[in-house]
Amino acid sequence: MAETVQSVDPRTGQAGPTYPASTPSDVRVAVTASAQAVGSPAWRDDERRAAFLRGAAARLREADGEIVALVQSETGLPEGRAVGELERTCRQLEAFADLVDAGDYVDAMIDTADPGAQPIPRPDVRRMLVPIGPVAVFGASNFPLAFGVAGGDTASALAAGCPVVAKGHPSHPGTSEAVAACLDAARADAGLPDGAFALVQGPGNDVGEALVDAPAIAAVGFTGSLAAGRALYERAARRPEPIPVYAEMGSVNPVVVTEGALAERADAIAEQLAGAVSFAAGQLCTKPGVVLVPEGASGEAFAQAVVDRLGAAGPQVMLNDRLRSSLGDRVQDLDADGNVQRLTPDGGAAEPGLRFDPLAFRAPAAAVRASRDLLEERFGPVVLLVTYASEDELLETAGVLEGQLTATIHAGAQEAELRRSLTDALSERVGRLIYDGVPTGVAVSTAMHHGGPYPATTAPAHTSVGMTAIARFLRPVAWQNAPQDVLPPALQDGNPLGIWRSVDGQLTRD
Amino acid sequence: MAETVQSVDPRTGQAGPTYPASTPSDVRVAVTASAQAVGSPAWRDDERRAAFLRGAAARLREADGEIVALVQSETGLPEGRAVGELERTCRQLEAFADLVDAGDYVDAMIDTADPGAQPIPRPDVRRMLVPIGPVAVFGASNFPLAFGVAGGDTASALAAGCPVVAKGHPSHPGTSEAVAACLDAARADAGLPDGAFALVQGPGNDVGEALVDAPAIAAVGFTGSLAAGRALYERAARRPEPIPVYAEMGSVNPVVVTEGALAERADAIAEQLAGAVSFAAGQLCTKPGVVLVPEGASGEAFAQAVVDRLGAAGPQVMLNDRLRSSLGDRVQDLDADGNVQRLTPDGGAAEPGLRFDPLAFRAPAAAVRASRDLLEERFGPVVLLVTYASEDELLETAGVLEGQLTATIHAGAQEAELRRSLTDALSERVGRLIYDGVPTGVAVSTAMHHGGPYPATTAPAHTSVGMTAIARFLRPVAWQNAPQDVLPPALQDGNPLGIWRSVDGQLTRD
Repeated sequence: MAETVQSVDPRTGQAGPTYPASTPSDVRVAVTASAQAVGSPAWRDDERRAAFLRGAAARLREADGEIVALVQSETGLPEGRAVGELERTCRQLEAFADLVDAGDYVDAMIDTADPGAQPIPRPDVRRMLVPIGPVAVFGASNFPLAFGVAGGDTASALAAGCPVVAKGHPSHPGTSEAVAACLDAARADAGLPDGAFALVQGPGNDVGEALVDAPAIAAVGFTGSLAAGRALYERAARRPEPIPVYAEMGSVNPVVVTEGALAERADAIAEQLAGAVSFAAGQLCTKPGVVLVPEGASGEAFAQAVVDRLGAAGPQVMLNDRLRSSLGDRVQDLDADGNVQRLTPDGGAAEPGLRFDPLAFRAPAAAVRASRDLLEERFGPVVLLVTYASEDELLETAGVLEGQLTATIHAGAQEAELRRSLTDALSERVGRLIYDGVPTGVAVSTAMHHGGPYPATTAPAHTSVGMTAIARFLRPVAWQNAPQDVLPPALQDGNPLGIWRSVDGQLTRD
Repeated sequence: MAETVQSVDPRTGQAGPTYPASTPSDVRVAVTASAQAVGSPAWRDDERRAAFLRGAAARLREADGEIVALVQSETGLPEGRAVGELERTCRQLEAFADLVDAGDYVDAMIDTADPGAQPIPRPDVRRMLVPIGPVAVFGASNFPLAFGVAGGDTASALAAGCPVVAKGHPSHPGTSEAVAACLDAARADAGLPDGAFALVQGPGNDVGEALVDAPAIAAVGFTGSLAAGRALYERAARRPEPIPVYAEMGSVNPVVVTEGALAERADAIAEQLAGAVSFAAGQLCTKPGVVLVPEGASGEAFAQAVVDRLGAAGPQVMLNDRLRSSLGDRVQDLDADGNVQRLTPDGGAAEPGLRFDPLAFRAPAAAVRASRDLLEERFGPVVLLVTYASEDELLETAGVLEGQLTATIHAGAQEAELRRSLTDALSERVGRLIYDGVPTGVAVSTAMHHGGPYPATTAPAHTSVGMTAIARFLRPVAWQNAPQDVLPPALQDGNPLGIWRSVDGQLTRD
C-alpha cells in the first residue's frame, strides 16, 4: 500500500484528510528535472524568474481563502496569523523579484588589466555570482507559509537562479500541496521548465534523506529543530560531494531586564514579554525562552506580572503532538530540578486538542551557569526567569550563553554604560540585538539578519530572513581575459544592465 | 624526549636543522590567548590591525635574505620564485590593510523604521559584518610564503578582526618560524595582544587535530590535498559546535585546445602549457593536469611539441618525499591503464635529491568519461592529454568534469560559438575561466576568485585569493531599534567612517 501523510487538526486532535507521500523514485525524478532546469535558457532569464516569483504571490493571494482554512485546520494557528503570514509570504516573493530586477545581487567586480603590476602582470578579471545549483528546502512546522514550501528559502533560492525541490513539513501536508500548486501554476505561466520547482512529501525521514543524498542537490535550506538540523548537516557532510546546509535551529533568545528598566516600565515589559512567550503557543524560533531579571522586590513583582499575564492567556494550541509531548518532557526536567521553581500553577496538557498551558519557571543565575541544560530551547509557551544578584553576575551569565538568534536588552535611561557592556558581551554570541522590544516578529528587510552562531544555525555567516538570504545560494565565478561575447551582461563593458559594480575597487554604475 | 620537526633539503635529500614541535598544551595556550584577544579594545581598533598587517610586510621585507634562503633550502624552489613569492605575500598583507582602512568590507546596511509597513510595522534595523572568532590556518607545502603562516588566509583573517593560530606545514618548519617571528614583532609594534597571532608546529596530524578541536576556534582556512582537507572538514563537522572549514584542495584544471587554436598558434600554446606543467615541478593547485586536444594530425603535432618542451625542462625538484612518492604511485596507475599511452620517455625519480621528470600521457576522451580515476589530480609535473573526435565529444567530456578551480579555453578567432558553448558547460563546474592563457599565476586583486565546487574546495561560495577572501571570516550582526551610543561607528547616523552603506536599499556614502 502506498504511504500517505496524515493531517491532524490540533484544535481538536481529530485526524483529517491524508495526502500521498513521495516515493524514492519521485525524489529522483524531481531532482533530475531540477538539474536539467538549471542550464535551460528560459530559467537563466532573470525577467522570467522575477515573473515566476510575482506570479506565485498573485496565485497565493487568489487562493487565500482555501489556504488560510487549510493552515488553521492543520496547525491550529488563528485566522489572523494565517492571513498575515500569507501576505508576508507574498511580499517576500515580490521583494526577491525586485532584487532580481535590480540585478545588483550578482555582486559584479571588474579588475582591468595592468601589464605593469608587480610582482606579476595583472590580467583582466571579472567576477560575479552565479546559482549554486538545485536546492533542497525543508519547510518548518511553525510557519507553514513564510518558512514553508513557498517561504524565504524557496523565494531566495529561486531568485538566485536555483531550482527548488521542497520537502513539505508532515504537520501540514494539505497546506504544502495547495501552496505548491500555486507555485507550479505560476511557473508554467512564466514559461519556465517543470524542474524549476517540485514538492515532495513524506511522513518520516526517508524522503528528506533521499533528497539530501541526491547527487545533483547543491545546497540545503532548513528551518526546524536542533536535532533534525544537525542530522541533516552531518549527513550532507558525509556525502561523496559534501554540500552546505543552511539550518536555522532556534535558540532561547535571552532577554535582559535591568533594575533601571523595571523602575521605568515594568508592566509594559511584562505585557510585551508574556505576549511573546504565549503568542502562537510560543512556537517561534525567536520566542524569548530565558529572561534575566534582578533579584529582590522589583524582580519579584515583575515575575508576578508575567505570571499573571501568562495565566490570563490560557491554554494554547500546539502545532502537533510530537512538539507537545517533547515540551512536556522538558517541563518535567524543569520540575525535577531542585534549583528551579515553578511560578505558574500546575497546568501542562489541556483539552480539547493539542493544548499547553503557558508556564513560567525561575532559577538563580548561578544554577544556570552550572548547568547548560537549563539553557536548552523549550519550544512552546514556556519561559525561564533567571535571577541575578548584581551587574557583574548579569554580565558573567551573559558570557556563558551559547550561540543565539537574538538577544534583547531592556535597560533604563540612566544605564548607558551597562547597556554598552551588555551589547559587547551579547554581540559576540548572537545574530541580532533588540533594544526595548521583543525578538519575535522578524521584519523582512534588506538589513535583517536572522541567524547566529551554532546552535542557532549551522552557518553563522548567513541569514534565512531578509534580502541577503540570497547569498546562500550563489557562488562566484571569475572570467580572466575573456572576450566580450562570452561574458554575461553583468560583466560586459558599458554595463548594459546598469547595475552597481566594483571597477578596479571603486563602486560605480558607469 | 620532546618531538621535533625535521627539515630536509629536497635539492639534495639531506636532513637539515630540526625545530621544536608544539605540545597539546601549547595549542591550548595559543587558542586561549586568541579567544582573549578577540574582545580586547586594542584588537578591535581597525587602525592598529592595519598597522600590524603593514608592519608584518615591512618585517618580512627586512628579513628577505634569511627567508629566501630558508625557502630554497626547505622547498627546493628556485631563488626567483622565493623572491617573487615574498613580495607577493607582502603586497597581499598590505592590500588587506588597505581594505581595513577603506572600511567598506563590513557591508553596512541600514533599514530605517517604517511604522506603517504591512503586514507588520518595520523597525530600525542596522546590520554589519563582525569577526567570526579565532581562526586556525593550515599553511600549504607548495607556497611556503603566499599560502603559508603569513599568507592569504592569515592576512584576510587578521584583516577581518580574527586572531590566527597558524599550523606551519612540516615541510618547511624553519621558514614558518622565521615568518612567524616577523608577524610577532609587527604585532608587538602595533601594541596588540599576544593572542592576535601564534604559530604551532608538528610533524604529524596531532597538532592540527588539536587545533581544529579547540572549542574557541571558529573557522578553519586550509590549502592542501583533498584527503587532508576532507578529513579536517569532516572533523570540524563532528565537533560539538561545528565550524566552517574553507579548504582549497586543488584540481586538474582542464585546458581545452580547439582545432582553430592549433591552426593559429599551436607552438605558442605548447610553450605556455609545458611551462605551466613543469614550473615549480607542477606543484601548483592551478597546474593544468588534463588537456583536451583534437584527434588527428594537428593534435599529434601539438602533443609532440608539448613532449619536446617537457623533455627540455629536465627533472624538477619536488617539495618533499611524500609528494614525490605519491606522484610515483599515480604515474604507475597511468602506466598500468591499457587506455593510457605514455608520451615522454621512461623517466620517473631522478638524482640528486627529490626530483621527478616532467611526464605526458595520452588517453581517448571515451576512456576518461568511463573512468573518473583518470581525472584525479596528479600533483607534480605530469599532464594527461585527452583526445576528442568532435566538438560534440569535446562538450560531452566537459560535462563529466568534477568541480574545478579553473578551466582554460584556447579557441580560434572563427570559433565564437564553440567558445560560448564551452564557456556555458565549464562555468557550471569551475571557479575561474581563463581565455588564451594559463591558469597558473593567480593574481591577487579585488575580483579574483580562487575556489570552485567540490572537490576543488569544501566551500564553493568562497575564495582563498583576492580581497573577497575576507568574507570567510566575518558574520553579520543586526541591531534593532538601537540607541546611537551602542552602535558601532559603521552603523551610526551621519556615517562617521564615510563608508559605502546600503540605506533603505540604496548604496550611498552619505
